[in-house]
Amino acid sequence: MTIHKTAIVSPKAEIGSGVTIGPFTTIHDNVRIGDNTVVEGYCELGVANNLSAGMPLVIREGSHIRSHSVFYEGSSFGARLVTGHRVTVREKTEAGENLQIGTLSDIQGHCRIGDYVRFHSNVHIGQKSVVGNYVWIFPYVVLTNDPHPPSNILIGATIEDFAVIATMSVVLPGARVAKGCLIGAHSCVKGETEEDSLYIGSPAARVCATSKIKLRDGSGAAYPWRRHFTRGYPDELVRLWTESESVDTPQR
Amino acid sequence: MTIHKTAIVSPKAEIGSGVTIGPFTTIHDNVRIGDNTVVEGYCELGVANNLSAGMPLVIREGSHIRSHSVFYEGSSFGARLVTGHRVTVREKTEAGENLQIGTLSDIQGHCRIGDYVRFHSNVHIGQKSVVGNYVWIFPYVVLTNDPHPPSNILIGATIEDFAVIATMSVVLPGARVAKGCLIGAHSCVKGETEEDSLYIGSPAARVCATSKIKLRDGSGAAYPWRRHFTRGYPDELVRLWTESESVDTPQR
Amino acid sequence: MTIHKTAIVSPKAEIGSGVTIGPFTTIHDNVRIGDNTVVEGYCELGVANNLSAGMPLVIREGSHIRSHSVFYEGSSFGARLVTGHRVTVREKTEAGENLQIGTLSDIQGHCRIGDYVRFHSNVHIGQKSVVGNYVWIFPYVVLTNDPHPPSNILIGATIEDFAVIATMSVVLPGARVAKGCLIGAHSCVKGETEEDSLYIGSPAARVCATSKIKLRDGSGAAYPWRRHFTRGYPDELVRLWTESESVDTPQR
Repeated sequence: MTIHKTAIVSPKAEIGSGVTIGPFTTIHDNVRIGDNTVVEGYCELGVANNLSAGMPLVIREGSHIRSHSVFYEGSSFGARLVTGHRVTVREKTEAGENLQIGTLSDIQGHCRIGDYVRFHSNVHIGQKSVVGNYVWIFPYVVLTNDPHPPSNILIGATIEDFAVIATMSVVLPGARVAKGCLIGAHSCVKGETEEDSLYIGSPAARVCATSKIKLRDGSGAAYPWRRHFTRGYPDELVRLWTESESVDTPQR
Repeated sequence: MTIHKTAIVSPKAEIGSGVTIGPFTTIHDNVRIGDNTVVEGYCELGVANNLSAGMPLVIREGSHIRSHSVFYEGSSFGARLVTGHRVTVREKTEAGENLQIGTLSDIQGHCRIGDYVRFHSNVHIGQKSVVGNYVWIFPYVVLTNDPHPPSNILIGATIEDFAVIATMSVVLPGARVAKGCLIGAHSCVKGETEEDSLYIGSPAARVCATSKIKLRDGSGAAYPWRRHFTRGYPDELVRLWTESESVDTPQR
Repeated sequence: MTIHKTAIVSPKAEIGSGVTIGPFTTIHDNVRIGDNTVVEGYCELGVANNLSAGMPLVIREGSHIRSHSVFYEGSSFGARLVTGHRVTVREKTEAGENLQIGTLSDIQGHCRIGDYVRFHSNVHIGQKSVVGNYVWIFPYVVLTNDPHPPSNILIGATIEDFAVIATMSVVLPGARVAKGCLIGAHSCVKGETEEDSLYIGSPAARVCATSKIKLRDGSGAAYPWRRHFTRGYPDELVRLWTESESVDTPQR
């Protein structure tokens, strides 16, 4: 355990073995940090708030939280969380393993996130969002939740497994981005979508099956992306993704 | 008064009674902080600059400034300002009471903001903006000011009372969002608008009166929102809003 | 040299004369800071990473880095870099003189940036971007790079000299914003563009020559902007820009 002398760490926090805590970081009381995790400088973990119902902030083993990030108590992450800088995560965020959260991203809490999800920089995940597994969300995407703002009715967006949302798109309240969909940049998604389809525009309209999109290097279909993009995924998944015939490739 | 031992507080700053100042926060000379205000950690208040003409930063009583926020000297806020994390507020921002500024929002200064305004996360308020009372601005909205960038002509946007601007919309220089308007997500507003109307698109076009929009729970009209959404407003306002027959409900 | 007593400065870092380093700032080993530079508080300069190939972070003379900014090792800037607050700059960013980077902007690294470039607040410069000289990029603009995300093929955007990209626009992978172009707010640029032209929309379409756009104060053409907007540029450039007949003014 290496705690910088300027860090302020509550004696009530549970800190695992091999944890590193950087300069000027504050760890509040209600925090559990798993083994071999790195928390860089200027972070604040376990911000108390009355919506957490006393639940701790749980960061599991092998995680890496970069500088200037703020996490509230009452959220829980699977192993190997990795963040960029200046990330904000509010209470009641329940996330799976190997989540990546890019610089400046803002997770508003009260949401569920699956395994191996990758949020790029400056993503905004509204309350009540439900994000599946192996999802990619690119910069300046916002998942919204209030169908007639301001109101007391919050209806989160749902992003299914393997879906990809490109830069500066909005997902409207209650919209469902179906399994394997690609939402083009600068789009606004409403209502239901079909699996493995490309949607573009504001409001977003279906263009074609994603399997029609070709890789620019001439090496074949760009989707399902898991057939060719495997960086950072475990070997057993990669084998399943690249060898299996079970991957759907609709051809409409 | 509770000042964390790591905070750097100028003896020239005027700090009220019951104020709390968090770890690693810097309070510069030209700052006045009202009673019972909380300034969390990693903040910097009263950044000196030559556009402030020596005016102080004035934070009034009962305010709460969350961590990693930066305020310049030369701005003034009514009582009970509440901010998220990493807020930036430049000089010559004049705001009323009960302003809320969400995480990552950037107020560029030289602007006026009324009472009970709520900026959600990551809102950008350009110089020369004029924002009325009871306004709501949602994430990733930008109020612009230069009609032909870059130029020396700045024409701010005007947002009138009770207006609502949904996520990822742009308000172009000199545009006026009229009283009670709702701007749909991912829109771009130009020129004049009619009161109590829904605008959508880029450029935004009038769709209907906001009174045509129904609440998803079947309980009636969604607008004027002040008839049903009253969380955080004072009782006398709520009574006025929910009991009065004087609320306009245009039916075109 | 004025280093705040709370700053953590590696003895291996090369710090020039007349440099000021603010409170709670961390300067890592592999950093060179030129004379008369100001680094404000809460910054972290020279973050180590395995993509920098041991190259240092080079900040040249007369620079000013505002609070809460993070720079990785392996990037290099010409003289007189000026940043806002909370800027992030990753490795292998090569930039010219007099670069301005606004508050919250995120330079992803592996990119080239010319002289006198001005990024306003909250700009996102993707990897492999190439930005010329005298370019202006306004808030919430994103330069992207992956034509079929996620993939291993990164094709950066190119922004040529004197081009201007207005608020909340996306430049798609491989797109070229030609010399002197103006991209209107809330646009999405794809493919090639013609010089000195106004493009608007998603996808962005050519509207007219920029020379058709008039200044709102009646004083003449708004473009080329360098004929009338000269704040902050050196005298010899301003003379060239405002006296020369060599500025192109296409009239289609």
